[in-house]
Amino acid sequence: MSKKFVERITGMDEDFAQWYTDVVTKAELVDYSSVRGSMIIRPYGYALWENIRNELDRRIKETGHENVYMPLFIPESLLQKEKDHIEGFAPEVAWVTHGGDEKLAERLVVRPTSEVLFGEHYKNIIHSYRDLPKLYNQWANVVRWEKTTRPFLRTLEFLWQEGHTCHETDELAQEETVKMLEVYAEICEKFLAIPVVKGQKTEKEKFAGAKHTYTIESLMHDGKALQSATSHHLGDGFARAFGIQFLDREGKQQYVQQTSWGFTTRIIGAMIMVHGDDRGLVVPPRIAPTQLMIVPIAQHKEGVLDFAFDLKERLAAQFRVGIDASDKKPGWKFNEYEMKGIPLRLEAGPRDIEQNQVVLVRRDTGEKLTVSVDGLESTIASVLEDIQASLLEKARQHREDKTSVAVTFDEFKTQLEEKAGFIKAMWCGEQSCEEKIKEETSATSRCMPFEQESLADECVCCGAKAKHMVYWAKAY
Amino acid sequence: MSKKFVERITGMDEDFAQWYTDVVTKAELVDYSSVRGSMIIRPYGYALWENIRNELDRRIKETGHENVYMPLFIPESLLQKEKDHIEGFAPEVAWVTHGGDEKLAERLVVRPTSEVLFGEHYKNIIHSYRDLPKLYNQWANVVRWEKTTRPFLRTLEFLWQEGHTCHETDELAQEETVKMLEVYAEICEKFLAIPVVKGQKTEKEKFAGAKHTYTIESLMHDGKALQSATSHHLGDGFARAFGIQFLDREGKQQYVQQTSWGFTTRIIGAMIMVHGDDRGLVVPPRIAPTQLMIVPIAQHKEGVLDFAFDLKERLAAQFRVGIDASDKKPGWKFNEYEMKGIPLRLEAGPRDIEQNQVVLVRRDTGEKLTVSVDGLESTIASVLEDIQASLLEKARQHREDKTSVAVTFDEFKTQLEEKAGFIKAMWCGEQSCEEKIKEETSATSRCMPFEQESLADECVCCGAKAKHMVYWAKAY
Repeated sequence: MSKKFVERITGMDEDFAQWYTDVVTKAELVDYSSVRGSMIIRPYGYALWENIRNELDRRIKETGHENVYMPLFIPESLLQKEKDHIEGFAPEVAWVTHGGDEKLAERLVVRPTSEVLFGEHYKNIIHSYRDLPKLYNQWANVVRWEKTTRPFLRTLEFLWQEGHTCHETDELAQEETVKMLEVYAEICEKFLAIPVVKGQKTEKEKFAGAKHTYTIESLMHDGKALQSATSHHLGDGFARAFGIQFLDREGKQQYVQQTSWGFTTRIIGAMIMVHGDDRGLVVPPRIAPTQLMIVPIAQHKEGVLDFAFDLKERLAAQFRVGIDASDKKPGWKFNEYEMKGIPLRLEAGPRDIEQNQVVLVRRDTGEKLTVSVDGLESTIASVLEDIQASLLEKARQHREDKTSVAVTFDEFKTQLEEKAGFIKAMWCGEQSCEEKIKEETSATSRCMPFEQESLADECVCCGAKAKHMVYWAKAY
Repeated sequence: MSKKFVERITGMDEDFAQWYTDVVTKAELVDYSSVRGSMIIRPYGYALWENIRNELDRRIKETGHENVYMPLFIPESLLQKEKDHIEGFAPEVAWVTHGGDEKLAERLVVRPTSEVLFGEHYKNIIHSYRDLPKLYNQWANVVRWEKTTRPFLRTLEFLWQEGHTCHETDELAQEETVKMLEVYAEICEKFLAIPVVKGQKTEKEKFAGAKHTYTIESLMHDGKALQSATSHHLGDGFARAFGIQFLDREGKQQYVQQTSWGFTTRIIGAMIMVHGDDRGLVVPPRIAPTQLMIVPIAQHKEGVLDFAFDLKERLAAQFRVGIDASDKKPGWKFNEYEMKGIPLRLEAGPRDIEQNQVVLVRRDTGEKLTVSVDGLESTIASVLEDIQASLLEKARQHREDKTSVAVTFDEFKTQLEEKAGFIKAMWCGEQSCEEKIKEETSATSRCMPFEQESLADECVCCGAKAKHMVYWAKAY
């Protein structure tokens, strides 16, 4: 069965890009449409996003933020108010030029991000330190005119949340920026079982208009890195551009200090590429739309379906449970739910029922467990927790295996070629070295991790005095 | 206090439009931006929408629907596939003509609604009757290029859900169309305390591309009607345009029968205009972001703040509770939370605490209740339920007072002038009469209610044989 199934999708190690495409379509996460570069997120993919979103939204609210909704369109003149920002985004925006039959007097941009809209609003509503902090967030769709696109990873339109906050001081803004990065890291590690490296982006890689950008970086099965979320300390750049001032505690006019931070549907692509295997998707139990799928065996025999449906009702009180009582052969069902990465399968046939037992099959390891129906809830709960922990541990191990240290540029190149993955290496801080490394190896600086190590005294590229330890990798 | 406050907003009966604008801004539901016709939904407005959305989403899922997400953009050629549909929507869409620096080969429409995107997708995924029904829904933003706009009621961009379903037969599609209209009616009546008239739209007023459109219509304080949600039986029009066929149970190729239905942020405008008064917003308890606001009295006195915060913690287990312990004067606080329409205010001062009591003040009636702290939860619960029921009853009474029967066209005109509101009158079924009525009175046919009455034998306009009883009104 497994063998027959494997032939249906491309092997990961054979053609990883094709494997990815096979998985996202065959697991019914997305469908293509006639809209170039956009995807249809199908029920299974959207249910995943809803689970991720609900967990993140809860934490965003717990940390004192409020949700708002800003307009989709941005007048060209508004986007131009912050110079670095427009320079960064102008090449990749969609332009609305006509409304109905009329040509617009001013072109509108379909938001690629909403700093300028928040900037304008904050100017209206902030007057005194009593109005601070302002901790806003929005869940929205944004558009970036990408040339090459892939479902979840890089699409013309994607879904995300974008937080935008204003603070009295630089220190408070810095604290917020890092706090939200930690929230993102927690969602990745605790729910998506994706281990991340937390750190700061270099000047070259930071957000257009930011003072500092922080990032969480994860490593995919093929050894390429994926920027999983970013959090920006904006300083007072937007505040000066938009005139967002407040009367401080000493009665002086000050510019607010701002942050922005975003988490997108891209993370679903990361989840696929971190946990998936040759049989398809593997979804971590905590965010799985269906945690357990019941497949009755020999369901035409008396009592089997009743037993299975009773079990479903019983387990649904505690777990997200599905049941497939269709007339498809069990083997087909096994394949389908393996492809969809459902963490646990429960098989129950006449013999099991007689012996008051069922069979649990783990998606991650394939392990079969024959367990008693008595106390089944606690068995399932502990197996799901074990799957969740194992996925994180396996991903961590994979990342460690794929992380190397390079002291010389030759080592850098050799390791990148042989192992792919993250390269930890020292850097002098000069953009010219970043550019040279990118040119010669295609690897980019992923981040200067919070946990710095002193691997050498010299820059891996130019040999000058090293300032930072950097994670480098080829990236999505 | 109340008097001082009243002067801050325009009276309802003085200038209803200005009153509305005052309320939406002063209650901090929205802010304007430099994007013409678009609104910023502020935290309080968005929290209202989240509560409405969560209730509706739960019911959409309980009735077997799954959420998906479709692209924001629609290629021009795709929109043109269904003729009535493009004719209806072309005058009011926003056109994207450029991506980055490049002119697009084909223009894209920013979705005004997504029938054609669902049509294309359904063609891909439906093959047999086993694939039916398909019951999809999406939560999204849509854009319609409106000339005159008002927050919530008519905006360039708005938020909504749009359901799109496919069925084997006309009867099943009809059943679905009416079922979802009932869900909308339940949300309006049970949660928003807005009574609705359920009925069918005339040919003239139906959705572009639909076979039948059903609607729920509500009546605002000023006597104008508001279309509160619609549900469309699409027949096989889109199915034929997009080639959505399936192999039926007899092995024959058939076109699917479709429905679509939508519920928008517009409903917040209805809530404001149905329940609001000269002191501002009145929010029904079941959807209120804050159901109860605690205002400590003489809070500098020993024990008052401790008492108030303990009470907040205790009540938060059962209600959505706020507390305002800022240094503003109680009178200012009263005004602010009355403007925001918070259903109940709880006052607690030193004397109350001594006597183990608090004061509850109802937003709807202004009634003050001195109640014991013992069993406070059940007192509050019953007062909130009473407010919820009273609001619905009051709105129902208002609608009845503003509903008249007209047998002759003269009566029609007089009643419309004198009472505004709904006019129930018989109609021959001819579009020419609908047009004449609109031309001479500005009233439009709101719906042919499910509950038909025989008021006369002749059409109120032309005197020909009457076919339907119709609700007429001037409308938003």
